Amino acid sequence: MSEITNPTARTRVVREPHRGIYDRETVYQILDEGLVCHVGFVSDGQPFVIPMNYGRSGDHLYLHGSVASRMLRRLDEGVQVCVTVTLLDGIVFARAIFNHSMNYRSAVILGKAERVEDPREKLEALRKLSEHIAPGRWKDVRSPNETELKATLVLRLPIQEFSGKARKGPPLDDEKDYSTRTWAGVLPLALKTGEPINDPHIDPARAVPDYVKNYSRKK
Amino acid sequence: MSEITNPTARTRVVREPHRGIYDRETVYQILDEGLVCHVGFVSDGQPFVIPMNYGRSGDHLYLHGSVASRMLRRLDEGVQVCVTVTLLDGIVFARAIFNHSMNYRSAVILGKAERVEDPREKLEALRKLSEHIAPGRWKDVRSPNETELKATLVLRLPIQEFSGKARKGPPLDDEKDYSTRTWAGVLPLALKTGEPINDPHIDPARAVPDYVKNYSRKK
Repeated sequence: MSEITNPTARTRVVREPHRGIYDRETVYQILDEGLVCHVGFVSDGQPFVIPMNYGRSGDHLYLHGSVASRMLRRLDEGVQVCVTVTLLDGIVFARAIFNHSMNYRSAVILGKAERVEDPREKLEALRKLSEHIAPGRWKDVRSPNETELKATLVLRLPIQEFSGKARKGPPLDDEKDYSTRTWAGVLPLALKTGEPINDPHIDPARAVPDYVKNYSRKK
Repeated sequence: MSEITNPTARTRVVREPHRGIYDRETVYQILDEGLVCHVGFVSDGQPFVIPMNYGRSGDHLYLHGSVASRMLRRLDEGVQVCVTVTLLDGIVFARAIFNHSMNYRSAVILGKAERVEDPREKLEALRKLSEHIAPGRWKDVRSPNETELKATLVLRLPIQEFSGKARKGPPLDDEKDYSTRTWAGVLPLALKTGEPINDPHIDPARAVPDYVKNYSRKK
């Protein structure tokens, strides 16, 4: 399929156009830092939005789940989807309530998902999904067997029609408000890890792997 | 309107039914801890999913934004929406790749949003939105003036048709996999704050308010 020239009328950022992002590299940075996407699809005229893990390989996004999942079966019918990834970077405290905001980066992909049928691509997609969530994990664990692969549906969404949006930096207040004594600034936010919790069945002397101990979404 | 008996066929959790949550109190805890929701709506047959702040007052969710927002104008037409809030609690590391999972809590609300016309309800909705994002902030800042209020569209979504879903606890592996030497357990995740960053225009001696210094999404 020929490349869509981004943005389209559907992905152009209209409000705050200076916040629009249309280059693949920046959008892929957002996708690669994100852990969960929100998948939108329509069923009987009703939109549904469901959180899912995902992986990326080149210009494709992979989704997976149970073959029994209502959502995945619906997506497998070739319906239009919207996949959105949002990273929260901070709360922006201004002097006027109207000028409060969030610092964030988000990416939106529109398109149709296709079922991955080829067994090698399916396994590789599952590896990409695993490496997206926890780089280094795949080599340490038992690979999926035939039964597990049969129970898993993998969908591929081409990243063709997409855009990103971001806000960063300090609050922007009206000139007349700068003289007020209200504190203003940014409270940074990030998804952070706590101390790993051993599975109750694990020998407590077993070392926590480095990719768990030093886990970070930042690349 | 009479209360919908939850779950409906549209909000019942089919996959992993033991993870379904249908009581208001637990779903409201999820909504109140969340900072951002993902709003799904349909335009020309295409679903869109957009991150937004929100506030809750009793059995209503409030959304707001610019009157110039394409999305809000679309919602204002009374179309069906889906509002989803997702809290990520951890990555679940199992011994088999198939049994890896996420610990999370999510809430989904289906319905139609209505524009808030009454000026007092509108101001109160904006206060609820502000207090949702940063409790204590509203009293410290300049309130919205007439021009700002006119530029702001506030929508109200009744929380009638809803459900939640959650996973918690350690990995669940197949019996035969428990003997492997792979580390297994949970890596906790949470949205955490960094050090507040003063606005460049602020006198550095000005104290950061307690509600910023001690900010937490946990109630």
